[in-house]
Amino acid sequence: MTSERFSATYRIETAHPLSEAAEAMAGEQSSGTFVDVPGETERLRERHAARVESITELDTVNEPTLPGAAPPSVGDPNEYTRAEVRISIPVRNVGASLPNLKTAVAGNLFELRYFSGLRLLDVEIPDKIVEAYPGPQFGIEGTRQIVGVEDRPVVGTIIKPSVGLAPAETADLVSDLAESGVDFIKDDELLAGPPYSPVEDRVQAVMAALDDHESASGGEVMYACNITGDVDEMLSRHDAVVEAGGNCVMVSLNSVGLSAVKRLREHAEVPIHGHRNGWGALSRCPQLGFDFRAYQKLFRIAGIDHIHVNGIRNKFCESDESVVDSARAVQTPIAATDDAAMPVFSSGQWAGQAPDTYAALGNVDCMYLAGGGIIGHPDGPAAGVEHIKQGWEAAMEGIPLDEYAENHRELRQAIHHFGPVGTGR
Amino acid sequence: MTSERFSATYRIETAHPLSEAAEAMAGEQSSGTFVDVPGETERLRERHAARVESITELDTVNEPTLPGAAPPSVGDPNEYTRAEVRISIPVRNVGASLPNLKTAVAGNLFELRYFSGLRLLDVEIPDKIVEAYPGPQFGIEGTRQIVGVEDRPVVGTIIKPSVGLAPAETADLVSDLAESGVDFIKDDELLAGPPYSPVEDRVQAVMAALDDHESASGGEVMYACNITGDVDEMLSRHDAVVEAGGNCVMVSLNSVGLSAVKRLREHAEVPIHGHRNGWGALSRCPQLGFDFRAYQKLFRIAGIDHIHVNGIRNKFCESDESVVDSARAVQTPIAATDDAAMPVFSSGQWAGQAPDTYAALGNVDCMYLAGGGIIGHPDGPAAGVEHIKQGWEAAMEGIPLDEYAENHRELRQAIHHFGPVGTGR
Repeated sequence: MTSERFSATYRIETAHPLSEAAEAMAGEQSSGTFVDVPGETERLRERHAARVESITELDTVNEPTLPGAAPPSVGDPNEYTRAEVRISIPVRNVGASLPNLKTAVAGNLFELRYFSGLRLLDVEIPDKIVEAYPGPQFGIEGTRQIVGVEDRPVVGTIIKPSVGLAPAETADLVSDLAESGVDFIKDDELLAGPPYSPVEDRVQAVMAALDDHESASGGEVMYACNITGDVDEMLSRHDAVVEAGGNCVMVSLNSVGLSAVKRLREHAEVPIHGHRNGWGALSRCPQLGFDFRAYQKLFRIAGIDHIHVNGIRNKFCESDESVVDSARAVQTPIAATDDAAMPVFSSGQWAGQAPDTYAALGNVDCMYLAGGGIIGHPDGPAAGVEHIKQGWEAAMEGIPLDEYAENHRELRQAIHHFGPVGTGR
Repeated sequence: MTSERFSATYRIETAHPLSEAAEAMAGEQSSGTFVDVPGETERLRERHAARVESITELDTVNEPTLPGAAPPSVGDPNEYTRAEVRISIPVRNVGASLPNLKTAVAGNLFELRYFSGLRLLDVEIPDKIVEAYPGPQFGIEGTRQIVGVEDRPVVGTIIKPSVGLAPAETADLVSDLAESGVDFIKDDELLAGPPYSPVEDRVQAVMAALDDHESASGGEVMYACNITGDVDEMLSRHDAVVEAGGNCVMVSLNSVGLSAVKRLREHAEVPIHGHRNGWGALSRCPQLGFDFRAYQKLFRIAGIDHIHVNGIRNKFCESDESVVDSARAVQTPIAATDDAAMPVFSSGQWAGQAPDTYAALGNVDCMYLAGGGIIGHPDGPAAGVEHIKQGWEAAMEGIPLDEYAENHRELRQAIHHFGPVGTGR
C-alpha cells in the first residue's frame, strides 16, 4: 500500500460470486454508479477507481443475515458466503478530510443488494489526514500527569444518580467520592446541561468541592464534565470548565458527531473524554455496521483522549473478547507519533476483573471505572477504591486475588461481597 | 402526553417478561444504573424517572435476532417475544438539547442484555427543543421558489462520474445537464472538496456555467454543492458557494453529525440538501438501530431542507413500503409550524415509478432525481427530463403511462428503452 492509496477491510456475506460482489463494493466507493456513463474514461478509472486488494473466504450460511439482498443470477440462492475483503481507495478521492473518508468507506455500501451482510472491520488512515488532524492532545501520558498516577490504571467512578441532582448536590457527592481516593470522576452520559444543572453552575460547584481535595497520588482529581451539546454550546461550556479550574470534558460522540468533536478538539485546553453511547446501534448485529477497531480510529484522529470500551464480564451484551480487542485497538498507534488514547473500562467492574484485564491488555494504561464496585463496598467508598488498587497490584505481581486478599482486608471483603473471583458485580 | 414529558417508541425482542424488559429500558434511560444507589430518593424518581407508557405484544420467534442477550431467569429461554414499547421521559432531563435527547432515547439501550432486538421507531420532539432549534430554513416552499417550480416535483439529476472531474469538467457537464431542462443538479456524495476539485473552484466554475442558463420554468437551476467537511471548513465552503451565486449546499449527514449540521444551519443562507449515506448501517437489521421516521426528525430539527429517501423499485436493498413511509415522514409536520422537508427520491428512477410514487405520496412535494433515467434516454438528456415530467403529468391526471405515452414521444421512447412500466431502470 503506497501513500497514494488507503485501504478498508470488510466482512461481507453474499450469495453472489465473491469477486463480483467485491467489485460492486469498489465501484460504489469510487465511480459510484451502476451503469457506464459518458466521460468516465480510462484515465479517470486509473486515477480514481477503488480496487479490490484481497478476498479471503470464510464460512457459509444458509439464511441471509439481513433482508433485502438480491438472489444471484447463477449459483445456489440459499448459500451465503462470508468473506473478508480489502479494498483500496486513492487518497486523492477524499483528500485530507475525515468526514469524506467516512463517506467513502461507510457510505452507501451497507445498502447494496449484493450483500446480506457488510461490516467495516478496519480502515487505514492516510498520512494526509493524520497530518491535517490534531489527534489526542493529552492521551495516556498527559492524563497520567494531571492525575499524578504513573504505574497503575487511573481508578475512577461515575456520579450516580444519573439525572436529577442539582449542582450543589452533585458537588457534595463529588466531595464524598474524592474523599475515597479516586483519581477520576465522571458525569453520567444522561446529564449534560439541563435547566436544573447548567454546566457552568455544576462545574463551579464541583471544582470548588475538589479544591479541598488532592488525589491520594498527589495529582488532581480529574472531573470529566459532560458538555455534550451543539457546537458553540460545547465550546462555551468548555470555557466554563476551564475557567472553573476544571481538567476534563466529556462528550457523547455519537450524539454530536465527528465534525463537532474535531471542532471541540481545536478549541480544547483539557482532555476530551469520549463516551460512545449509541455504539450498540452501530455494532450489535455482527454482519452489519462497524467493528470498534475502525470506529475508534475516526474519533482518535478527530482528537479524543479517552474512549469507553465497556469491561470484562460487563453488564451489557458485549463479549469479553470484543472488549479486549477494543481496548487494545485504542492503545495501538495509528501513525508513527504517539496518538494512542486511553481505553476506559467500565460496567460491572470491581477488582475481580483486574487480573483478566491486565493479562489481556499487557499493561496498565487504562482507566478502570467502578460505580457499585466502589460505593457498594461494605466498608464504604474509600475501601472500594483501595480494593481496586489492591486487585491491580495483585494482577501486576501475578499473585492470585484470593491469595493477595489474605493480607489485604479491603480486597478480602470485596471478594466476600462481590465475588467469587472471576465474576462481574 | 403533557409538555412536561416526551415519548419514544421502540420495537423490542426479548426472552424476558415484557414488563420487566420495558422497565429495564426506562431505568437505563433515566436512573441509568442497575443497583439502588444512595441519594436516589423518591423525589428524584418522581421528577426524573422515565416511564413505560404502553406495551403492545407482537409476534414471537424461536431464535434471538442479535447475539449477547441473557437468558431469562424464568420462562422459555427459546421464545423471544417482540413488542412495541412506548417510554416517556421528563423533558427536564434533556433540556432544550437535541444531542442530549439523542443520548436519552438512543444511548446505551441498544446494548442491554435484556434484548435480542431493540429499534427506535419514533421519537416525539419536545416543544422546548422545537423552539430552540432553527428547523428547515427553506423547506418545500422555499425550494420551489428558487427553482420556480410550482405544481410538479422538482426534477433533478446527479453529476457523474462521482469522482475525478476537475472543476472545469464538472462545469461542462453541469452546462450540458442544465441544457436538458432539469431543475436541480447535485454533486455525488463521494466528491466534496478533494485537492483536484476544491469547493471554491468548483462552485465558481459551475455557477458561471449556470449563469448562461435559466431553468425551463423560469427559476434558477439549483446546484447542490457538496461541502461535507469539518465545521469551519463547511462554513467557509458555504460562504464560497454564496459568493459564487450558488443556491444550495449538500452535506453527508452521518459523516459530519448532528451538531455540525445545526451549526451549518445557523450560518446558512441557502437550502441544505441532506444526504443520508451510511444510513444502511443504522437501519438495515430490522431489529436494531433506527426507523427513518425517528432519524429524519433529528436532522430536520437541526435544520436541513431536503433529505434523501431512496426511491420506489430502487437499486438498493430497501423495500418500496419503507421508501414510501420515509417520504411521508419527511413531509409530516413535527410542530405546528411548517417544518416539513422535501423528500428526495433517487436510485434507479425514471418515469416508470412516477404513478406509484404519486399514489403513495398523494402530492408532488418532492424532488425526483434520475441519473441514467435522464442521460440514458435514447434521445438524450433533454428528452430524459421531458419524459419524467410527462410521467408525472400522467400520474397527476390519473392516466396510465402507456396510454399517456401514445401522445408523448419522449415517454413512449423511455418506456420502450427503460420499461416496461412498473420496473426500475
